[in-house]
Amino acid sequence: MDAPPREIEELIELMAKLPGLGPRSARRAVLYLIRKRGGLVLAPPLADSMQVVAERARECLTCGNVGTSDICEICASEKRANGEICVVEDVADLWAMERAGVFAGRYHVLGGTLSALDAIGPDELGIPRLVKRVEAEGVSEVILALNATVDGQTTAHYIAEELETRCKVTSLAQGVPIGGGELDYLDDGTITAALKARKSI
Amino acid sequence: MDAPPREIEELIELMAKLPGLGPRSARRAVLYLIRKRGGLVLAPPLADSMQVVAERARECLTCGNVGTSDICEICASEKRANGEICVVEDVADLWAMERAGVFAGRYHVLGGTLSALDAIGPDELGIPRLVKRVEAEGVSEVILALNATVDGQTTAHYIAEELETRCKVTSLAQGVPIGGGELDYLDDGTITAALKARKSI
Repeated sequence: MDAPPREIEELIELMAKLPGLGPRSARRAVLYLIRKRGGLVLAPPLADSMQVVAERARECLTCGNVGTSDICEICASEKRANGEICVVEDVADLWAMERAGVFAGRYHVLGGTLSALDAIGPDELGIPRLVKRVEAEGVSEVILALNATVDGQTTAHYIAEELETRCKVTSLAQGVPIGGGELDYLDDGTITAALKARKSI
Repeated sequence: MDAPPREIEELIELMAKLPGLGPRSARRAVLYLIRKRGGLVLAPPLADSMQVVAERARECLTCGNVGTSDICEICASEKRANGEICVVEDVADLWAMERAGVFAGRYHVLGGTLSALDAIGPDELGIPRLVKRVEAEGVSEVILALNATVDGQTTAHYIAEELETRCKVTSLAQGVPIGGGELDYLDDGTITAALKARKSI
């Protein structure tokens, strides 16, 4: 009968468009923002912060990372090694690589995988741009850190073929994850890959 | 090594405070907002909408519902029946009742349940205020629509005792949910309640 006020309904509808939030969890999140204890302390800075990000965030023209300038910090940094490019599907994957803190080269963010169904071809993923970078920056190795899905692996093979005459192309090792390695819980593909790549100790 | 820019990191941290969103899903949501396709169309109106809600939303002084004025639309409406108050734990429950569209009276939102552990007593839930409303508004029936949890039922019993000399106190019927009623999937408590409350057909 009586719906929530229009302003609140509108915020719920917008929040529900975010990935991982449906109408129900959007309602919960918005109610939390309105609630006295803690909530109203959060809403104004959240609105400000979102405004700032909406205004300033942009994709790096070189690698596709997100940042607040046309060239991201990683591409602009003189401390990062030239000559190595790590190819990831998504900015979230780049951040995961950075959290691991073992890669000191540059990145290329595809923004997805090749998909005939969604009409996503090499151009949409910036693969020609990656090829140009490999040549222009004198890259010696491209490390493919794509997800172990069918689409991810198809994309990896395509990129490897495009680049094989130009530089060394490698991919992340596949095997038993460290700290999460109960064999019983692993899928067959992982076990097969780990067995094939077994090492002597 | 290189973290996301400070502005973006800040938005992720704020988003991660919302219920139902952890750090990982907050990252995904923020990346979605930044992304070109669809995302940047969403971020500015979302920031505006959140600002509007942060400024205007408030709790109704009478019933605890959220709205944009000191007295909510339901309390202010002349079309709603006086004399019946439905007591709910949360505004989300009030909205659920309104979506069902069968209750035409007024509400009282507790904002939680009695909990010795969290030091939430009758005052925090506005129960004395509810008792005063029952007397002042000449309420003939209070319908307890609290969750079927231990805390919810403890709270229901407490309110029933407070009000029993003042008006009729009822609670929502418990039983097999309509449209979701495969007995095999129901808990024992629901089946017991449904059997005890069986009706001749």
